[in-house]
Amino acid sequence: MDLTRTLDPLFAPSSVVVYGASDIHGSWGRAVAERLLRGEPERPVYFVSERRPEVLGRATMPSLDGLPEVPELAVLVVPSRVLPAVADQVLAAGVRAVVAIAAGFGETGAAGREVERRMAQAAQEAGAVLLGPNCMGVVDTGSGLHAAPWIDLPAGDVAFVSQSGNLSIDFGDRARDLALGFSRFVSVGNQADVTVAEVLADCVSHERTRAVAVYCEAFPDGRAFGRAALALREAGKPVVLLAPGRSAAGARAALSHTGALVGDSAVVDAMCAACGAVRVWTPREMAEAVAALRALPAPRGRRVGVITTGGGNGVIASDAVVAAGMQVPVLPPETAQLIAGAVPQSASTGNPVDLIGATLSDARNLVSVAGLLLDSGAVDAVAVTGSPFSMWFDADESLAGVERDSVAGFRELVDRTAMPVVFTTDRPSSPAVAEAVAAGLVVHRDIESSARALRVAWDAAADPSGVPDEPAAEQPVTAVGYWAAREAVTALGIPVVPAELVHDAGQALAAAGRLGYPVVLKALAGEHKSDAGGVVLGVEDEAALEQAIAVTTERLAPGAWTVEQMLDAGPSVELLLGCRRDPAFGCVAVAGAGGTLAELAADTAVALAPVDADGALRLLTRLRCGALLGGYRGGPALAAGHAAAALAALCRFAAAHPEIAEIEINPLVVAAGGAWALDARIILDQGGSHAGR
Amino acid sequence: MDLTRTLDPLFAPSSVVVYGASDIHGSWGRAVAERLLRGEPERPVYFVSERRPEVLGRATMPSLDGLPEVPELAVLVVPSRVLPAVADQVLAAGVRAVVAIAAGFGETGAAGREVERRMAQAAQEAGAVLLGPNCMGVVDTGSGLHAAPWIDLPAGDVAFVSQSGNLSIDFGDRARDLALGFSRFVSVGNQADVTVAEVLADCVSHERTRAVAVYCEAFPDGRAFGRAALALREAGKPVVLLAPGRSAAGARAALSHTGALVGDSAVVDAMCAACGAVRVWTPREMAEAVAALRALPAPRGRRVGVITTGGGNGVIASDAVVAAGMQVPVLPPETAQLIAGAVPQSASTGNPVDLIGATLSDARNLVSVAGLLLDSGAVDAVAVTGSPFSMWFDADESLAGVERDSVAGFRELVDRTAMPVVFTTDRPSSPAVAEAVAAGLVVHRDIESSARALRVAWDAAADPSGVPDEPAAEQPVTAVGYWAAREAVTALGIPVVPAELVHDAGQALAAAGRLGYPVVLKALAGEHKSDAGGVVLGVEDEAALEQAIAVTTERLAPGAWTVEQMLDAGPSVELLLGCRRDPAFGCVAVAGAGGTLAELAADTAVALAPVDADGALRLLTRLRCGALLGGYRGGPALAAGHAAAALAALCRFAAAHPEIAEIEINPLVVAAGGAWALDARIILDQGGSHAGR
Repeated sequence: MDLTRTLDPLFAPSSVVVYGASDIHGSWGRAVAERLLRGEPERPVYFVSERRPEVLGRATMPSLDGLPEVPELAVLVVPSRVLPAVADQVLAAGVRAVVAIAAGFGETGAAGREVERRMAQAAQEAGAVLLGPNCMGVVDTGSGLHAAPWIDLPAGDVAFVSQSGNLSIDFGDRARDLALGFSRFVSVGNQADVTVAEVLADCVSHERTRAVAVYCEAFPDGRAFGRAALALREAGKPVVLLAPGRSAAGARAALSHTGALVGDSAVVDAMCAACGAVRVWTPREMAEAVAALRALPAPRGRRVGVITTGGGNGVIASDAVVAAGMQVPVLPPETAQLIAGAVPQSASTGNPVDLIGATLSDARNLVSVAGLLLDSGAVDAVAVTGSPFSMWFDADESLAGVERDSVAGFRELVDRTAMPVVFTTDRPSSPAVAEAVAAGLVVHRDIESSARALRVAWDAAADPSGVPDEPAAEQPVTAVGYWAAREAVTALGIPVVPAELVHDAGQALAAAGRLGYPVVLKALAGEHKSDAGGVVLGVEDEAALEQAIAVTTERLAPGAWTVEQMLDAGPSVELLLGCRRDPAFGCVAVAGAGGTLAELAADTAVALAPVDADGALRLLTRLRCGALLGGYRGGPALAAGHAAAALAALCRFAAAHPEIAEIEINPLVVAAGGAWALDARIILDQGGSHAGR
Repeated sequence: MDLTRTLDPLFAPSSVVVYGASDIHGSWGRAVAERLLRGEPERPVYFVSERRPEVLGRATMPSLDGLPEVPELAVLVVPSRVLPAVADQVLAAGVRAVVAIAAGFGETGAAGREVERRMAQAAQEAGAVLLGPNCMGVVDTGSGLHAAPWIDLPAGDVAFVSQSGNLSIDFGDRARDLALGFSRFVSVGNQADVTVAEVLADCVSHERTRAVAVYCEAFPDGRAFGRAALALREAGKPVVLLAPGRSAAGARAALSHTGALVGDSAVVDAMCAACGAVRVWTPREMAEAVAALRALPAPRGRRVGVITTGGGNGVIASDAVVAAGMQVPVLPPETAQLIAGAVPQSASTGNPVDLIGATLSDARNLVSVAGLLLDSGAVDAVAVTGSPFSMWFDADESLAGVERDSVAGFRELVDRTAMPVVFTTDRPSSPAVAEAVAAGLVVHRDIESSARALRVAWDAAADPSGVPDEPAAEQPVTAVGYWAAREAVTALGIPVVPAELVHDAGQALAAAGRLGYPVVLKALAGEHKSDAGGVVLGVEDEAALEQAIAVTTERLAPGAWTVEQMLDAGPSVELLLGCRRDPAFGCVAVAGAGGTLAELAADTAVALAPVDADGALRLLTRLRCGALLGGYRGGPALAAGHAAAALAALCRFAAAHPEIAEIEINPLVVAAGGAWALDARIILDQGGSHAGR
């Protein structure tokens, strides 16, 4: 995909033609046409219709030929069965951008996908871009283009890129409540040509866009998405991503909705970590996250000072802040003393700081205590809860001036300290709260929203790990049996427990003699290790080995066995290390609790591959069982570096082998003196479509 | 505490006297007095004041003596320093109930606790009840009593009992949005006399109360709370509990707020499971849970059918429903066919069911498909998302009738099927949505609220496990060393690995000879097992045992050792079983992953003790590691029944021994053939205040 071509004809065309414009109230054709006409006279709008001589009071043309110019943009509100032909016409005439509204293409199956693929190809060959099909158009408030039905979004600096048109109604409504406006709205539909990634890349240099909200179910080019999102972040434009499909039901629903397989949700998380995008799960979370990231400075840590005008509010707020993954630390004595000295009434100077008395006497005390907290170095952010701005405002207008001063005071405080402050109010209809919102302060009705806003700001402040490039493909792997997998892992420099491949009891006994008892016997069915009952651990002597050979022969009739040393590594942790190929994001690295813990613990971490040894170590430390690597119950530290090196080596190999669907070591036994693979497997991609990009 | 005394004088007094009534705008004295006067002339209100001859246009009396009657209720809005004396006066005069507003008592420390304890005792001795101190009064909309400042709650059928007065402002505001009203509001403050539990017990027979919302930080009588909540549930009145303190910061904040230690959050959860209360964490969750439980029938299972008028909405909804702990199952083919046949436009008949086309043509299709789903037996509840009721309502008034029909249709459907249906709207300001809310349908703006509403309804439908009585205390335990703990566990019939207590190497060798090698050697420091380095596993022979004795002597100079059999149980799971005494709820049973997993897995479950063997087994199955008890990787089922019996035995013992702060077996090794304790300990309550009730 060419991400360097221009999308200007889509966002800021000099003229527009509409196919399917209509007079009928409630029709899509009218809804689009009316909105486009708002751009006149600067941007001429033409209607082409074979059936209707006049639409919305102006004459239509039967074809493009009669127009005084070739319009830059064609908006096609025609039925799906004629859409490809009309698209061909306008592309042949030289339009530079096409918006294809109709549904009934890729989301319906393979045949539809082929039709839209041909439309996209035709556009590309014509040097044009095509948005959709199955979309709700495009809006650019800066250029004054409103090529989307039903949707009237307030102007502002948020770009909203969505695979679902409907969500724009929801998100637009919420944005209004949060005083957000839009620079662009792009309904990408089936992404046949223009993808979410391409729109994101275009927004990097789009002056009016200061933040980007994305709704995306399918990632046709996952790494390009990541790279574009990373570029946005580096340009100071936060990216909030609502990518559903976390549940099996959600993934199934997305498949049914768009006809495209949703990426593994954990891999989407890995992509977000790589590019610094903040992931959310609902429209409410998306709107609040965008509002938070636009308004809040980045916190330097997780420590939150909670200030409350009511005890119960403070207790609930503390729980909510901690539940959101932030901290409510005890204040150091010197900070507590500062606070106690600064307010006339006795305040609870722990954290939360309960200022009910001090606020009742003077609302400005809230501001001064927040300032003390932020300046103290004891916290990285402040959350005010209870009735900030409105302890007295509504009860007594004579005190409104004091409350107004507190609004101005907090505004100055945030500007001076560049530290985040969020407010939760139990008096949402108070005029004082409206004044605070108007001053750009972040005020929520719900404490969970305030807590999440701080968490989102903290998450967004984390350094992205970067979107790695996949290496060029090497000579494909073909042998994939257990023994071949062991050899591949060994060739990567990863220690594997010594073993020999044997075909009868005699060879087994000889091998065991060389390896030393006790040994492990593994029966191979064909090239592969037998699943059930084919592994005998702790074979102590020759008699036991003969017995094990006999039993496995009886049960499984294996063609061969491996005889392996029984590893006695002392205190150790079993890890699972591997790579797998994601259809959307290419090769990903996986680390997890291994061995018998693997199924029980659900303890895994994922990153875009390849990762280097440092990146692998960071991945291991994200595991719950990663805590054991530092040494368990006073035991010695384990060889985490060896494990990290093993994962990095697996990554380098798998990323260069798109034919490998999955490669896995489970377990890798990590002890104090090193790490050893006890088992390995490789699964080749059956479909042969190696999706890595 | 006597829960059988009447609270009628508090909720429906025949007359009221106010101390501290005031003319001053914004004062508590005026705010209370104004509201009480609304109850006249049915309920006479008297003002007693030594300083003010007249308040709010009526003459005050210098003392109670001048009144024509002894008022039933005295509301004391006087400063804390005079409150005890005034309370004594009114109790001496014969009032039956006292509301003590002032703060500055138990929440400030031990001295304040003693003062309020004496006030409570005086009230009890006078046969009266005392609400507070440190409270915001009481409202009973049925009796027309408004003895609370600032608070004007709409009448209805929800009782709100709160340890925080401020929260009533927040909760009242939310309740209005959700069309909820209040039967009672009780601000219990420090619960010096009247406790939350007592108010709950009183609401069981309170006709107008149909649901109860509770904010509670401290449970002075935890089991009484549980029993009252259970009685409410059995009377068909759901209980929603906001009990903060889940985080260390929240618990610290509650301690600072009320001066009372917050119960362990996991134990509060156990109490909720025992009594069927639904626990929530924020005011928003509390209000929405009450609204859901008032309006939604109980689902018979977790299966939710999602119906959407937009693909993206359906995907997000599926994730949200699953995230809330419910299920979005694939529909059986016959149900999918039924749906496909019932609507004119092509619908996606998976789950979610995407009805955008069918809804555009006729909004009533939403109702008929919801009916098909509920009648099919394939789901237990339905969540509708997108734009229900307002696909066309706002765009074209001529279609409003159809949308109105859909409101009526859904109302009938819910009434007919008695199955829960929730709605999420992306057009919250639509008049059609207001009509749906007015019809008693459960409509949310946020999908997470709808999903949570179904989850709350499901949780509330679970059978409560019951609030067990604690047995009478038995002869206290005094010996608590390791050997004594082993013997106590053995006496309970729980198998413990054979061991002998020895005092020198000679005794050790003789014991090992009897027990058989390999053995485990544990060094005892005094009576207790040494913490670090005092346990030597896998001692294979006499030489190794002598060496282990020498090494532990050198390092720890122990007074004694135990020599224990080395258990070889085959495939097994290590559990932690124990009981501990909670200051609020008495003896609680704890089960968890044991041994080396214990610290890693954070896998524990808690129940009010005693539990019988069935209850213990249910607790074990709630553990993540409980899945292993059924047999791991095709291995044999483990002796879960033995483990359950062991926990039940521990419970019986610990519940009858309030002097035991903690008793624990860790690990209990559960194998196919039985379960064995490898270690045991008992910790006595140092304070000597055995809190079990």
